[in-house]
Amino acid sequence: MRHYTHIADLGVAGVERVLARALEWKRAAPGRHLDGRVLGMVFFNPSLRTRASFETAMLRGGGNAVVLDVGAGVWKLEYRDGAVMDGDRAEHVREAVPVLGRYCDALAVRTFAALEDFDTDNADPVMRAFRSYTSVPLVSMESAREHPCQGLADMLSVHEHAGATRGVPVTLTWAPHIKPLPHAVPNSFLLTAAAAGCEVRIAHPPGFELHRSVVAEAEALAAASGAKLSFTHDQDAALAESQAVYAKAWGPSAQNASVSAHPDWMLTRERLDRLAPEAAFLHCLPLRRNVEVHDSVLDHPLSKVVGNAGNRFDVQRVLLDMMLNGG
Amino acid sequence: MRHYTHIADLGVAGVERVLARALEWKRAAPGRHLDGRVLGMVFFNPSLRTRASFETAMLRGGGNAVVLDVGAGVWKLEYRDGAVMDGDRAEHVREAVPVLGRYCDALAVRTFAALEDFDTDNADPVMRAFRSYTSVPLVSMESAREHPCQGLADMLSVHEHAGATRGVPVTLTWAPHIKPLPHAVPNSFLLTAAAAGCEVRIAHPPGFELHRSVVAEAEALAAASGAKLSFTHDQDAALAESQAVYAKAWGPSAQNASVSAHPDWMLTRERLDRLAPEAAFLHCLPLRRNVEVHDSVLDHPLSKVVGNAGNRFDVQRVLLDMMLNGG
Amino acid sequence: MRHYTHIADLGVAGVERVLARALEWKRAAPGRHLDGRVLGMVFFNPSLRTRASFETAMLRGGGNAVVLDVGAGVWKLEYRDGAVMDGDRAEHVREAVPVLGRYCDALAVRTFAALEDFDTDNADPVMRAFRSYTSVPLVSMESAREHPCQGLADMLSVHEHAGATRGVPVTLTWAPHIKPLPHAVPNSFLLTAAAAGCEVRIAHPPGFELHRSVVAEAEALAAASGAKLSFTHDQDAALAESQAVYAKAWGPSAQNASVSAHPDWMLTRERLDRLAPEAAFLHCLPLRRNVEVHDSVLDHPLSKVVGNAGNRFDVQRVLLDMMLNGG
Repeated sequence: MRHYTHIADLGVAGVERVLARALEWKRAAPGRHLDGRVLGMVFFNPSLRTRASFETAMLRGGGNAVVLDVGAGVWKLEYRDGAVMDGDRAEHVREAVPVLGRYCDALAVRTFAALEDFDTDNADPVMRAFRSYTSVPLVSMESAREHPCQGLADMLSVHEHAGATRGVPVTLTWAPHIKPLPHAVPNSFLLTAAAAGCEVRIAHPPGFELHRSVVAEAEALAAASGAKLSFTHDQDAALAESQAVYAKAWGPSAQNASVSAHPDWMLTRERLDRLAPEAAFLHCLPLRRNVEVHDSVLDHPLSKVVGNAGNRFDVQRVLLDMMLNGG
Repeated sequence: MRHYTHIADLGVAGVERVLARALEWKRAAPGRHLDGRVLGMVFFNPSLRTRASFETAMLRGGGNAVVLDVGAGVWKLEYRDGAVMDGDRAEHVREAVPVLGRYCDALAVRTFAALEDFDTDNADPVMRAFRSYTSVPLVSMESAREHPCQGLADMLSVHEHAGATRGVPVTLTWAPHIKPLPHAVPNSFLLTAAAAGCEVRIAHPPGFELHRSVVAEAEALAAASGAKLSFTHDQDAALAESQAVYAKAWGPSAQNASVSAHPDWMLTRERLDRLAPEAAFLHCLPLRRNVEVHDSVLDHPLSKVVGNAGNRFDVQRVLLDMMLNGG
Repeated sequence: MRHYTHIADLGVAGVERVLARALEWKRAAPGRHLDGRVLGMVFFNPSLRTRASFETAMLRGGGNAVVLDVGAGVWKLEYRDGAVMDGDRAEHVREAVPVLGRYCDALAVRTFAALEDFDTDNADPVMRAFRSYTSVPLVSMESAREHPCQGLADMLSVHEHAGATRGVPVTLTWAPHIKPLPHAVPNSFLLTAAAAGCEVRIAHPPGFELHRSVVAEAEALAAASGAKLSFTHDQDAALAESQAVYAKAWGPSAQNASVSAHPDWMLTRERLDRLAPEAAFLHCLPLRRNVEVHDSVLDHPLSKVVGNAGNRFDVQRVLLDMMLNGG
């Protein structure tokens, strides 16, 4: 049974394979490859792209999706073993997850970081619990630690833009925000770019380091793929001659770091000039205009954020095929 | 690319065509005319009929709908150009709308009037923003200014009841309510009835005038269709010998007008006697019984409110066909 | 037109027929027996299993479901005749229900007990109102008085486990909870087990009696089926040599009874030893671990709660077939 909840489930060869298949299916769609299959989608957190792209991936393939919102139309779920369930969580994932496997051919789950403890979020407790108890293939729609479908879509955009991923200089630059955000997206950008063999540059102010376990995993992937990784506090240096720049807000890893202390890190039109000619600007969306990134970047021809979101559909239908058809 | 967000997108000929096709398809259903198509439905506001009728129109035609609730399962959306997005709206329609166009073949959106400024609501800012940024055909499921699918369903009911729309006396009468409501439904009744050539009578207490731009647009449509329009503060006169009466609550246009000042405007059984024999009572629903309209009207054989709601399905599948098949 | 909202709609012969067909279809699926049909699912209360199992039952059969959440994406609904609707309920079921019948081939509704008055809940006002006004077949997804699909799934589990239902000793034992819960599940267990001819034992602390009308109905069913019914305050006696034990929390019927007064009624591993060898532990779910039932029971091989939830799908697709195909 194949689960795709972390980039480690794919590794270097798996990432390459997903990108190759996605590029192939963008030229020639696979038809009703998911005919009659049902994906159960469980949301602990809101979604626009993820919901619409997974649901349409099932529909376009001839299948269907059942959408369940935890805590809205659906009971709140407990995931801690041994809990005395006398609070607001009326059901345990030990029951809920295998039950959904009785109705659905595969499951997808979205659950955000609690942002209370950095190590706990990195351990990904809710996603790990789902993975422990599922009886059918499971795919992540983002969890506390990773957003692997986003990382794959990002690399698909890099490949389409640069004709390859190996050796391509790509920059992930921290962006300001009104509140601390989870690390799942930057983690997945780093891990997937490392697996795809990019020349990866991560730029952020002091105090916003990614978790050491993520960095260590990225280094191991880089050793296998030939990727190069660098980390810097100098945004300008990181942007220089980069072929793709990815802006993203994330929260502090150090206690004294503040998301509101670095408004100058907002990406502006002038900074695009530091990139290679014909570079691509990417973002996972949603995005707060004129807080994270200036209008003049988003409305510039180099911005490929809409196409990048479109690529979510393309990588996900490949993963769904691998889960449901072993393809 | 065809958008149907306002009656102006159809005009006199378009309204006639939708009604003719809807009547034809009520006799012989079009089969899987929407095979494999996906409609993305974006709701800023709640819905019963609209959600169910659009979704089943897609399903009956062989397609599917993806339902997105803004602010519930989906991020709140900003629509103002140049906004510094440091509030509760986490995403801009400039990104969200074209992204949805990557997944869906057409979009539908519902967004109610903010009821803060009459002219702003009439300018329909959210619907206009969606229309500016969409890359696929767009249909209105009601906006601040208009509810065109409702207007079309209303005229389909008039046609079924009176055998025609041209020259048929129809009355829209204001109804009391517990709070001010948007003008979209009365606006669309007026505009669609004007396009369909009815003898249209609008009755309301002083202070509840429809927006001058809507009245002007209706007058232009009437000039083209041969419709006659009249506006009165005398409910009884408006009802006299009318072949269809449409009751609807809407909010004041004048500062000193109050929705609670005219309880006597509630439609009662006695007032039905003023209508032509075999007249039809219509309402868009939802409806507050014994506040807007008395039980004795709703439970009377002349009430066609359920059939009128059913006609939403019939006009919408025609619009979806025009959007997706150019039919 | 066939409605399945209460066990009385099936009676002894109907329950037997549903179970036989469900067992048959578990061995050989019925294919696209619901091709092109649309079920409208109306939720006044949250759901996980019910939503997913009904929706997948439609999808697996070639149909679709439209999901409507009352009070979330959908208007709150009034159901009292003659109400002056000046509160928070913006629509009456007299309109909403027949309107949905214009779009859908069948309806399903979930509405929980209000827990304000025992007799009112037992009279099932919301479900009765839906039943009065629907123009298409209606099925209950749980109402104030009964949860018939749950009762049928429970008996399917008993049949699979014991090879029969007639004469099989089954125990329903009250469980502690943090708050009073409705009686629908215990009522349906009793009624369905009585119809299926079990030797039914109901154990609960004093003050938690089921409604006299439910007991009377169960006695009538037992007289027809040959079931035996017994009621006791002695949990241990009820468990003795039982082949299936069903734990469930429900609220008091007597004013002075408290849900928190009997923590010792929580089912534990030790108590399983009183059952017949190879007995099955069942629960409807959701379930609060270590409040209602101890981990050591739920994680024991005798626990069949996941399979029991799976059986919801199996009995429901039979009911849907009976509603839509007269099968």
